Amino acid sequence: MSRNFGLFQKNSLPKCQVRLSSSASSKLNISGIYPPIPTPFNEDESIAYDKLKFNMDKWNTVPFRGYVVQGSNGECCFQNWDERIEMVKKTKDFADPNKLIIGGSGCESTRDTILMTKNMADAGADAVLVVNPFYYKASMNNQALKTHFTKVADSSPVPIILYNVPPNTGMDIPPEVVVDLAHHPNIVGMKDSGGDITRLAALCFQTSSLDFQILAGSAGFLLAAYNIGCVGGVLGLANVLGEETCRLAQLAQTDDAKAAMDLQLRLVGPNTCVTRRFGVPGLKTALEWFGYYGGPTRLPLVPLGQQDVDIMRNVFKKSLYLD
Amino acid sequence: MSRNFGLFQKNSLPKCQVRLSSSASSKLNISGIYPPIPTPFNEDESIAYDKLKFNMDKWNTVPFRGYVVQGSNGECCFQNWDERIEMVKKTKDFADPNKLIIGGSGCESTRDTILMTKNMADAGADAVLVVNPFYYKASMNNQALKTHFTKVADSSPVPIILYNVPPNTGMDIPPEVVVDLAHHPNIVGMKDSGGDITRLAALCFQTSSLDFQILAGSAGFLLAAYNIGCVGGVLGLANVLGEETCRLAQLAQTDDAKAAMDLQLRLVGPNTCVTRRFGVPGLKTALEWFGYYGGPTRLPLVPLGQQDVDIMRNVFKKSLYLD
Amino acid sequence: MSRNFGLFQKNSLPKCQVRLSSSASSKLNISGIYPPIPTPFNEDESIAYDKLKFNMDKWNTVPFRGYVVQGSNGECCFQNWDERIEMVKKTKDFADPNKLIIGGSGCESTRDTILMTKNMADAGADAVLVVNPFYYKASMNNQALKTHFTKVADSSPVPIILYNVPPNTGMDIPPEVVVDLAHHPNIVGMKDSGGDITRLAALCFQTSSLDFQILAGSAGFLLAAYNIGCVGGVLGLANVLGEETCRLAQLAQTDDAKAAMDLQLRLVGPNTCVTRRFGVPGLKTALEWFGYYGGPTRLPLVPLGQQDVDIMRNVFKKSLYLD
Amino acid sequence: MSRNFGLFQKNSLPKCQVRLSSSASSKLNISGIYPPIPTPFNEDESIAYDKLKFNMDKWNTVPFRGYVVQGSNGECCFQNWDERIEMVKKTKDFADPNKLIIGGSGCESTRDTILMTKNMADAGADAVLVVNPFYYKASMNNQALKTHFTKVADSSPVPIILYNVPPNTGMDIPPEVVVDLAHHPNIVGMKDSGGDITRLAALCFQTSSLDFQILAGSAGFLLAAYNIGCVGGVLGLANVLGEETCRLAQLAQTDDAKAAMDLQLRLVGPNTCVTRRFGVPGLKTALEWFGYYGGPTRLPLVPLGQQDVDIMRNVFKKSLYLD
Repeated sequence: MSRNFGLFQKNSLPKCQVRLSSSASSKLNISGIYPPIPTPFNEDESIAYDKLKFNMDKWNTVPFRGYVVQGSNGECCFQNWDERIEMVKKTKDFADPNKLIIGGSGCESTRDTILMTKNMADAGADAVLVVNPFYYKASMNNQALKTHFTKVADSSPVPIILYNVPPNTGMDIPPEVVVDLAHHPNIVGMKDSGGDITRLAALCFQTSSLDFQILAGSAGFLLAAYNIGCVGGVLGLANVLGEETCRLAQLAQTDDAKAAMDLQLRLVGPNTCVTRRFGVPGLKTALEWFGYYGGPTRLPLVPLGQQDVDIMRNVFKKSLYLD
Repeated sequence: MSRNFGLFQKNSLPKCQVRLSSSASSKLNISGIYPPIPTPFNEDESIAYDKLKFNMDKWNTVPFRGYVVQGSNGECCFQNWDERIEMVKKTKDFADPNKLIIGGSGCESTRDTILMTKNMADAGADAVLVVNPFYYKASMNNQALKTHFTKVADSSPVPIILYNVPPNTGMDIPPEVVVDLAHHPNIVGMKDSGGDITRLAALCFQTSSLDFQILAGSAGFLLAAYNIGCVGGVLGLANVLGEETCRLAQLAQTDDAKAAMDLQLRLVGPNTCVTRRFGVPGLKTALEWFGYYGGPTRLPLVPLGQQDVDIMRNVFKKSLYLD
Repeated sequence: MSRNFGLFQKNSLPKCQVRLSSSASSKLNISGIYPPIPTPFNEDESIAYDKLKFNMDKWNTVPFRGYVVQGSNGECCFQNWDERIEMVKKTKDFADPNKLIIGGSGCESTRDTILMTKNMADAGADAVLVVNPFYYKASMNNQALKTHFTKVADSSPVPIILYNVPPNTGMDIPPEVVVDLAHHPNIVGMKDSGGDITRLAALCFQTSSLDFQILAGSAGFLLAAYNIGCVGGVLGLANVLGEETCRLAQLAQTDDAKAAMDLQLRLVGPNTCVTRRFGVPGLKTALEWFGYYGGPTRLPLVPLGQQDVDIMRNVFKKSLYLD
Repeated sequence: MSRNFGLFQKNSLPKCQVRLSSSASSKLNISGIYPPIPTPFNEDESIAYDKLKFNMDKWNTVPFRGYVVQGSNGECCFQNWDERIEMVKKTKDFADPNKLIIGGSGCESTRDTILMTKNMADAGADAVLVVNPFYYKASMNNQALKTHFTKVADSSPVPIILYNVPPNTGMDIPPEVVVDLAHHPNIVGMKDSGGDITRLAALCFQTSSLDFQILAGSAGFLLAAYNIGCVGGVLGLANVLGEETCRLAQLAQTDDAKAAMDLQLRLVGPNTCVTRRFGVPGLKTALEWFGYYGGPTRLPLVPLGQQDVDIMRNVFKKSLYLD
């Protein structure tokens, strides 16, 4: 699975299905498409586990590699310690057995992140996604970041995936830190939601001799990401247009560049709506349109106004996903 | 206590001492200087309550208006739910009875913030400091922010102080939101750590007919803040140079502009060291120099390297606070 | 005129009038208030020198220290080489003989800046204001900035004032560069429009033993600037409310802190309108309200829409400068 | 040449060669690769036209579509009015007759931009590249930008290419402005140096029924840009590694995705060195390594220090472009 420079091999198997690593590498193969699932709430803001099951029954029919639970789209930071773990457990229960379950276990402190990682592993997570601490961003120098991720990876019973999400954290994990951490046997890859394709290409190049797998963090640049060596994506849009995102992943790995471009361009507008532009309220609105349970967010996230709903509907129409 | 436009009255009483509002207003008088106290840890990262008592015995001799506990300088986001509450309780226990105790109760979700606010009030907080939610910054529009703070203020048993800290949150609470919230009977003021004095002057002007008290969030602009109508400060530097910061507050309210300027300029270098430049590790290093317990931070915050310690020592020397 | 630390002397003379340095220092005294005058245009975008004379006849009655011509408010970057020089010449001609004329001579290249500086000095400028080059901001490291300003100062027949204006340039001149340049005999001070009062206080402290004079670049923080050691201001608002800004400067140097605060707070709203919020189009609109010639801007600056005009009028009304 | 949605046709001809539009569209075909040529200087900072000829004799052997002269890499803002025009004239003289000459004609004012555009067209430019005005960035609202570009396009004798370069201008031309301007018959496309591939994909989608051609502004995301519908690139790196960048453009349009990725990843490090990381001084250093004349920059750009030269050399070595 290593990407030796000068010898990049595009795997001919569809990446959207489970494929256990058969190479000498001991690292978990995480390639493929994942929806970072939203947490469904009842009107009183309690977690609606029945609605989670309803949604997952539908998602299980899509050729996803697995699920990310308790990521940014899961309103992770609005849930308490026990809820975060219970959501992992329930997702594992409701998921097809061949799906990877990735839990978002990042906390601000190293000690909490270590404990949450263990708790999520116990609850059934096959791997964890660890966002960098960011509240004290001015103090998050290279040494602090390396120490944090190394300690978490050292003690984790499951593989670690780094999580870089500058729109939320207000910072980037510096490339030299990523390259350094890529050598750790228990750090298998990174999800990057920044969308700076030059940064991602540099990281793919610098980690090409290592077993380090990079996942696009948004469907807006999924094709571009595959074309410079990324191996999958954790895509908010996959919750809504799962088949289409998996199909884009497949096209990106075939030789039909025209079809891939066509589909990528259709997806970029809807993607922006359910991510940067309208956030989780936008995502939950769109879920309803496609037969899923959306439901309310927890406060302080507020529902979209009618004007924004109309804008969003128009964007989906222009891409021919709504009539 | 209202600042009627055209009739600004500088209170002739020293603001560093407790002074109950005698006006018609029912709002708590929060004017004065507060150290946002750091949380002392043992080498194993457990909370060192004995060291907290040691520090507070010293701070109690300084004419502070009170203490902020579980703010940014208190490594609030590295402590779990119970620790955050226990720290409020212990601070209340160790504080002189005439000191105001302000707990940092902000959480990302409205429901958690409401609950934490109640828990901190039960633990002895006289008021709470509520940072705006910021993880989903793109979704934190005016409606979201107003809803959040209003719901927290409506249900809180103690007064609310808004907390704007863009270096950590990556965003500002918009002025129009602040002005709107200033009308709420249970929102008594704001701590602003951004340092944009034009913004603060605009807010002082726009809330001049209301009972809304603004506190500077850093000693770097304390004099400037007083001179445009702010009534105090929550100052990281006050942990280290408490008497000096209280003296600057007094000078700012007298007519000795020369002495005030002189002291302000001396404090700006040391202040930058223990805040933006070296963060909590810098603050804890400086505490040791002045006879307090500093001790380790929790990870991922790492201790200063020797080079940074030397730079910091030099700055304190240039301001004549170290030999 | 040096500000020796621990011995800050507030000059008791009104700073708004011409006062030649009588100290041992050879540096030009630039203390006081300056309007950065707008360039008046006819409807066909040609320069209306008759309207310049009309405006200056009015400004000459205000106790300004002098005029800044070809600054940001003068739409400097929309004028060609000859126009920039001619505007300096005409301003000198129309100004009261006791006013200082400061020309904005900054260009992107060092060679152009040197030549423009000489041309403006020949045209009558008593000093020049030199904005840092900023197009190649990533390459404007400390060495580049020091080299640039030193070469310009070395060859200039008149004193140099550094100009830091991050809202337009997208960068700050680093404090260590400013402190270094403050030693140059032909660099007399800096205009800083960033409004970061902590930065300005640090610079005042670090240059307190030198003959380095800092001017506030906006009326929004003029009082704060005086109170930490600045000696004047170059204020867009001074074009419109000249008497009031000079009065604020005087109050800032007396002991009537209450009156100073009162006036500062009244000015902050109108100031924001004619600077950050509505820019030069806002300034030119407001000029008309107060009996000056405003006239059109050059494209691409477009006139304010009616809605913005109404907002602006409202702000001036709230501050009691319009009925 | 239109990119009808759902019917994207990859042109099977090599894009690096001149190909006149044979479609009904009257718009100039600008697809292909262009080096934005640096301006060679002698040690006294005068323009070394002999060295320009020397470099162009070499570049003429590379299958470039043409040359961009007086772009950011050409130190455009360090040259006076006559020099800017003369450089266009000389480039036209020295270029192979089948190369397109694109002049960078953007100025801050609309009137200057119109005049410079005409002057450059007279000097031989086949098209012009127009950066948005940015000094008054807060005033550069949609109306201002649309007015500016429309007036320039209306009066220009040659086609206009929009130029978005946020690292230098500190702002983006908003997507809705680009889409609006794409309808103008004399605006043929845009060069975008921001590198936000999601933004570019959205623009490609929204202009897919128009004859609007987007060029990548950096080799760091050239492959990604082609794969979402861009038709070429203006690449600083093309000055140094011209054959390689043209080969990447060709690979991007064939079905050998593996070879394209391989080459893209090799180029990303060297590209970053001669653009964002070390700027024009880096570019001129690298030119010397590959047999071109580099020479000095104009001040305030300063030569790279030895340490930076070593870093840069190492990056080129890792990509196997230096031994």
